[in-house]
Amino acid sequence: MSDVAVMTSRSGRVKSARRLTARATRASERLFLAEGPQAVREALALPGCVVEVFATPAATDRLEKLRRHARVQSLQWHLVDEPALDSLADTRTPQGVVAVCRFIDVGLDELPWPDIRLLAVCADVRDPGNAGTVIRCADAAGAGAVVLTGSSVDPYNAKTVRASAGSLFHLPVVVAPAVKQSLATISAHGLVVLAADGGGSVSLDDLEPALLVGRTAWLFGNEAWGLPPELRAVADHVVAVPMYGGAESLNLATAAAICLYASAREQHRAP
Amino acid sequence: MSDVAVMTSRSGRVKSARRLTARATRASERLFLAEGPQAVREALALPGCVVEVFATPAATDRLEKLRRHARVQSLQWHLVDEPALDSLADTRTPQGVVAVCRFIDVGLDELPWPDIRLLAVCADVRDPGNAGTVIRCADAAGAGAVVLTGSSVDPYNAKTVRASAGSLFHLPVVVAPAVKQSLATISAHGLVVLAADGGGSVSLDDLEPALLVGRTAWLFGNEAWGLPPELRAVADHVVAVPMYGGAESLNLATAAAICLYASAREQHRAP
Repeated sequence: MSDVAVMTSRSGRVKSARRLTARATRASERLFLAEGPQAVREALALPGCVVEVFATPAATDRLEKLRRHARVQSLQWHLVDEPALDSLADTRTPQGVVAVCRFIDVGLDELPWPDIRLLAVCADVRDPGNAGTVIRCADAAGAGAVVLTGSSVDPYNAKTVRASAGSLFHLPVVVAPAVKQSLATISAHGLVVLAADGGGSVSLDDLEPALLVGRTAWLFGNEAWGLPPELRAVADHVVAVPMYGGAESLNLATAAAICLYASAREQHRAP
Repeated sequence: MSDVAVMTSRSGRVKSARRLTARATRASERLFLAEGPQAVREALALPGCVVEVFATPAATDRLEKLRRHARVQSLQWHLVDEPALDSLADTRTPQGVVAVCRFIDVGLDELPWPDIRLLAVCADVRDPGNAGTVIRCADAAGAGAVVLTGSSVDPYNAKTVRASAGSLFHLPVVVAPAVKQSLATISAHGLVVLAADGGGSVSLDDLEPALLVGRTAWLFGNEAWGLPPELRAVADHVVAVPMYGGAESLNLATAAAICLYASAREQHRAP
């Protein structure tokens, strides 16, 4: 493809895309960057999500199938040099391809409520990697959606997108800053709210299977300070992952995985 | 404490300790660095573990209790300036205290085998954060030990120590490069070896509680390539964490947490 122009970091298209590395620009343009073949493939599988693709010539040769998917959707596939691609990527070793995507979060009222049996709710989860890992794990556990509430991290942060390993594109993600109002809506739709908290009054392993098998929203709090009393108070149960050894606690994403899979196991068990 | 000498980065003691940031030096001196109040506190609680402590004057004022623990053990508590402390620390925001510790890993034959009902075995786990998270989670799940085998990361890597959140000092850690021989020893001690692998023939949620309640060694493989066929072949069962949604897989530490807690739940359930 030596006859095709290869854009540099100074190209206007690359500069515009690069502005999306800042949260404020993402928020005003409602666009974000998805990096690497896995994320770009998942984004292309979501109709109307991708706006345009940037790739190095080498990656373009490797990713012929992705390029076909982009062509079918009449999307522009811009060839860029390595420094230009690096300037759009968050990782030190980007894999040669970045897509500009439209925001895909939905409103809490748009969720297919009757079908939702399991929900993950992050309240004030600040670490992008944790939020992405929770999204990935909620997807793996068969959750119907993930709700990022309070001051939780932007789901379109590059680290969140990467840690979600494509799951950001698999299940509905809701951004709803008002925590109590969100929990009230979730309860009104008939889900039992289980708050995960190390100081919880009941151990996860003592919960009745009959409770776990029901429609459940797991509420996870901030990495450092957990869930404030007023949120624990509105949950139906405050549940602790039991500490059987000497550890004082688990990190947020690990605890979330254990809670979500405890529900998934009961919900998917043959009746 | 203005009358006490505060060491700088160029002090011989600080230079010697700084050499322990390299794996080769750690291996030859059988010493490593533990960073931050939590790790130093846990290390001080382990008799004979700590050799000496470095702290800034400000941290020394804050950590009077730690300093008393060190004094009871007749350990030297060196005052260092901020740049000297930073040069010993792995994090960008160290919390003012670093301890030089003796290696604490034990041999596979030294484990209290009759008491071990749950074991976590990492084969070729390369990411220091993952290894530390598995150690923390194994501790939380009440495992009797963690075995790092094959080409797994050094447990004394600063990132591993930090991710373990003190658990490195709570339960025996074994470093045993020969994977198959280690698994043979584990089996000979009567533990059932369950290999965790996305391509496993049985789902974790379909395992009989009677199997999970028994003495179990969970085997976890490399982040990128998982477990090679020859290791899956020597396991008693190859078990997959079920994917109920669109995710293709979970990251290693998350999958390990789900597996270890599935065992812990059955093992701790009232008979």
